[in-house]
Parts: sequence; structure tokens; C-alpha cells
Amino acid sequence: MLSAELQVASYPEGGVGPQHFSVVKVEVPDGADGLAEGEVLVRNTWTSVDPGLRLRLRAAAPEGYFSAFPLGAPMDGILTVGEVVASRAAGFTTGDTVWHSLGWREHSVVRASDEAMNGIGTLRQLELHGNEPQWFLGALGPMGLTAYAGLAVARALRGGEVLWVSAGAGAVGSLVAQMARLLGHHVIASTGSQEKVRWLQDTLGVDAFSYRDEEPGAALKRLAPDGIDVYFDNVGGDHLEAALDAMRMRGRIALCGSVSDYESEPRGPSNVFLATAKNLTLSGFRGSLYLDLLPEMQARVGRWLQEGHLVCPETVYDGLATAPQALADMLRGRTRGKTLVRL
Amino acid sequence: MLSAELQVASYPEGGVGPQHFSVVKVEVPDGADGLAEGEVLVRNTWTSVDPGLRLRLRAAAPEGYFSAFPLGAPMDGILTVGEVVASRAAGFTTGDTVWHSLGWREHSVVRASDEAMNGIGTLRQLELHGNEPQWFLGALGPMGLTAYAGLAVARALRGGEVLWVSAGAGAVGSLVAQMARLLGHHVIASTGSQEKVRWLQDTLGVDAFSYRDEEPGAALKRLAPDGIDVYFDNVGGDHLEAALDAMRMRGRIALCGSVSDYESEPRGPSNVFLATAKNLTLSGFRGSLYLDLLPEMQARVGRWLQEGHLVCPETVYDGLATAPQALADMLRGRTRGKTLVRL
Repeated sequence: MLSAELQVASYPEGGVGPQHFSVVKVEVPDGADGLAEGEVLVRNTWTSVDPGLRLRLRAAAPEGYFSAFPLGAPMDGILTVGEVVASRAAGFTTGDTVWHSLGWREHSVVRASDEAMNGIGTLRQLELHGNEPQWFLGALGPMGLTAYAGLAVARALRGGEVLWVSAGAGAVGSLVAQMARLLGHHVIASTGSQEKVRWLQDTLGVDAFSYRDEEPGAALKRLAPDGIDVYFDNVGGDHLEAALDAMRMRGRIALCGSVSDYESEPRGPSNVFLATAKNLTLSGFRGSLYLDLLPEMQARVGRWLQEGHLVCPETVYDGLATAPQALADMLRGRTRGKTLVRL
Repeated sequence: MLSAELQVASYPEGGVGPQHFSVVKVEVPDGADGLAEGEVLVRNTWTSVDPGLRLRLRAAAPEGYFSAFPLGAPMDGILTVGEVVASRAAGFTTGDTVWHSLGWREHSVVRASDEAMNGIGTLRQLELHGNEPQWFLGALGPMGLTAYAGLAVARALRGGEVLWVSAGAGAVGSLVAQMARLLGHHVIASTGSQEKVRWLQDTLGVDAFSYRDEEPGAALKRLAPDGIDVYFDNVGGDHLEAALDAMRMRGRIALCGSVSDYESEPRGPSNVFLATAKNLTLSGFRGSLYLDLLPEMQARVGRWLQEGHLVCPETVYDGLATAPQALADMLRGRTRGKTLVRL
């Protein structure tokens, strides 16, 4: 049968738009007979729109990143949720809800990988347990895992401490702030505008400040006069330095990213020596290396989502053909929270 | 009865010397009758000579350090080994070998502290098990604990990896290098002269380089072309930066001290962001917070010392009255390894 997929038609020079993609009908198997051993056919229902795609929409991707997408072919590495409609892979049955990384198409033929190849985008059964399927692309997916893994490596899952998260209104930061609050921490979130400060305070229910209006060090003294125990770092630079200063004995820092280093010459914190005096631990981490935490995270965060204690805003586009516009809008900052396409 | 102690007679303006101390005979109890409940009388046999004493030999100690020593009184905070000659403290019996922190005197009346006060210098029974008593002031004492605790926080006790230790010919560094070699690591030690490089290679049996003759980054590429897994940092600054560059995935760094920051404006590593990409952990620590590791460390390191697999050079002075000269010599770099006074 024929099914639609989005192919890269040309590489954008400036802004990405629908003109750089083509909707193409391609032949997919009608059922299990058309599949090879170990393959499943998935009818995709929700697909993710991620900023990282932009880096691969060029003839040669920057060194150290994934390879560039070829022209005239669908993109890969895009997490997608769907339902199995035919299976020749052990452990997968028609009707299963799954995720996999062959998104931006209506149907995908996906090979079930062996254990050794297990990664975040590997074909995986999803236990809905009352969760909405698209949540697995946001709070219950890679973003949620990054937030939860950071709290785990910072030994912050038991609550009862003072935790600061930078870029607290961002995709990962807003999940960290809410998870930490629900775990029983006193949460301080920093962000870049008073509008976001209000959202953090009123909607997410945490303390917040804008680093554009107040030095992080001064804000921490005001909001946490006895110091902080945990810092979830999405920024680096002067934020990391302020955290080292404000840390109490045996504090922990989860190093998730350092946006400040992207924009200018990396500036190292001049007070790393405080880590020795205060017995601090700084843990760099990537969520994708903590897949063992995924079931635990999905169980806890799924319950919070269903009970309305945790919010994860979504901007939803309808139909495969809208995906390029969704990407364009997201890259221009016109979407809010997780950007999704319903297929 | 009368027993000798060293009192601070005056604060040195420049170099420390015997003229700044007085040997004074003071009255100590003859036996248990002269002790209060909870006290023991110790005949000291070995006492430690530590560089940190110099900072307290002044009218006002620098902020953040221990307080200054008063004039006309013996110093405290000096780890000492001795034998119990009388006891009114539960758990301590005549003949026990102990350590405590009231050194630089022939006899000490020491109060056995309650659990809550437990610190590295607290009165503690030593199980000799064939060890020489003075080893407990060096490889089996605070220095050994700092080395071992650093290996523990860097999850490096199981061996089989590539480990770099800076200041590798120093008191702590030379223990780290030897313990790591005996645990089965490939050990690279850095130091500041070719003479020390030869000692590290020939006597300690590890790879070594001098940072005065070769950039740490270049030396690591030469000695560990596939990268390093563990870095024991006694230096900070450019050494820490080189380690972050050379680290393999899931590498660990034990932050023990940053000598380079003492001499000049602290310079932060500009590549902390690599910790995220490579899932690295940086753990600041102080050995004194890891007293729970002391028995394990003493058992393992004691066996290595007895079997001659691990060396800890000593410079020994004889008699209490030589302690000020020992301190003066050590501060001028005229002693080698652990400086000790036999009483």
C-alpha cells in the first residue's frame, strides 16, 4: 500500500520552511507477509519536532554531530509514537503502542534491535497505564529522562533539600523544577525574563528569578540564605560559579549543558577549588546513558501528569504535511513547550 | 610525675627555629587515680611534624584556618602515636596502642570523645597487626586516608584503568601512585623535576613526566594515547584542563587540592562542558570526611607496607627537643617523605 513520508528536497540557506521538504507517497507492506524477520510495521500517531534537526539539514553537518540528512530521503532520528499493525519481531504484537526513531512519516518499517544496540530511539513497547501516547515524546520521553537522570546523578531523588535549576523555563528545566518540587525540595528556578519568572512562580509553583535583572549570586543569597544543596546546570559560566559559591557541604551539581559557552568564549568557573573544601560532586551526564531509569521515571512522572501535578505544555500541529511548518515555527520561538505533530 | 612538653615561646617573624619553643616540665598524673572519668594517660612514642603548623604560629591565623596557637602552652592538633599507661575511659586498657591529636609532648592526658565528636584526631585504638606504630602517622594515617578516599570517590578501587595523579612525588600523590599501581591501574604521575620523574619511575614503578619539560596535554597523549579514566588532582588549573581534555567516556576526577590556585589568580578550566558530553564526574573531597574507610585502608595498605610493595619514606628525629628543628628543616625542604619525631 502507499503511505506518505516527508523527504528533504533541498537544504535551507536561511530559515527552514515547507519549501525544503516534499510529501512523497511510497510503497509500504500491507501486512506481515511484506516484512522481513525481525521487522514490525508501525502506523505512526505522534511525531516529535526537535531543534537538533536543523543542524543536519545541510550538505555537511558540523563536526562532532550526527551526519547530514541526504536529499530525496526521509529523515531518521526523530522519535515517534505509533501502533504496531503487523509484526515479524519476537515480543511485538499487533496493537502494541511503541516508540521508535523513524519519524516524519505515516508508516514506518522498523527493525527490532538486539539488546546490545539498545538506545533511546530503539523500538520499544510503551505501557500506557492511563498516559496519553504523546507524553512519551515529552515528559515521559528523552526530555523527562534527562531531567530525572540529572536528579539521580545529583542524588536528589529523596527530596528535602534546596535545589536550583537554571534555564528553569526551558524544556528540560521546567521538568526538573516540577519533579524537584514534587519530590519535596525547595526549588529555585532561574530564567531570562520576568514573564517567565511569573510562569515559574504561578504555574509551576517554584521560587524564581531572572538573571537579567539580578546577579545569580545575589538572588541565591536572597532566596536561599543558608545555601543550596543541589544545582541542575543548564547554563555553565557565571551560573556555575555562583552555584559553587552558594553550595553547602556535600552539595551536588548535575552538569546538563552550558548554553553560555555556545555564545561566547567558554569561561571556566574560577572557584572549582571550593569543591574540595566543601566536598562537592559535579556530575556531567547525558540522559541517553541512563536508560535503566526510564521505567522508574515513566511510572512516577506518568502518575504526576495524570493527577495534574505536573504540566508539560504542548503545541500541536495536525497532519504530516504540517511538520515542516512546525519545525520552522519552533526554530523561530513561536511554539511553547513540546512541539508535536499528530498524524 | 613530671613530663616534658613543647610550648610556643614566641611567634617567628621569618623562619621557624628552636628559639621559638621551650621544653617545659609539667606535672602529669602518676596513674588512673589522677585521671577524671573518661580520660586516659598516654606515653607518646611517635609524633608528627606537619607543614600546616606554621600557619598557626602567629598572633592571628589567616581567616578560614584553625585558630592561632597561644603562647606559653603546648600545641594541639598534632597527630601522635603512643601507649595507654592508665585509663578511666571505657574501651581503653593499659598497653593499648592509640593515636590522638595532643602531640609534641611526652605524656598526654586525652579525653575519649563520644561518637558525635569523632574526627581524624580523636583518641583511637590502633590494631598493629604487624605494622610499625609510626606508619599510622603516614601511609596508614591521614595522608593514606586522603589517597585512599580519593580513589574511592573516583570509583577507582577496582583497578584495570588508566589513572593520572598530579604532584605524584608529594606526600599524598606518591601514595596515590603506589596504591593505584597495586590496585592494577596503568599509572601516570606528574611532577616538577626530572629527578622526581626518575624516583617515580625507578622506585615507585609508574610512568612519569615533568610538567616543567612537557605540557600535560602532550605528555598524556604520549603516555596514554587512548585517554585516561581517572585523574587524581592535586594541582588544578591547566592540569585539570588537560585532564578534562584527555578523559574517556565516564571518566572520574578526584579533586584533592589545587596548589596552582594558591600561587596566582585562580584560573578555571575552560572546558568543563566536556563533562556533559563525556559523562564525567568531578568529586571534591577531604579525607577527614571518609573515616568509615579507615579500617579498610589500613588493612590493605598495611599489608602492602609489610610486604615491601609500597614505600613511604621517613625522616626521623630523636627526642622531643628535636621537634622544632624537624619542623624548621621540613619547611625548608630538607626532609624527605614523612617527617617524624621518635620520643
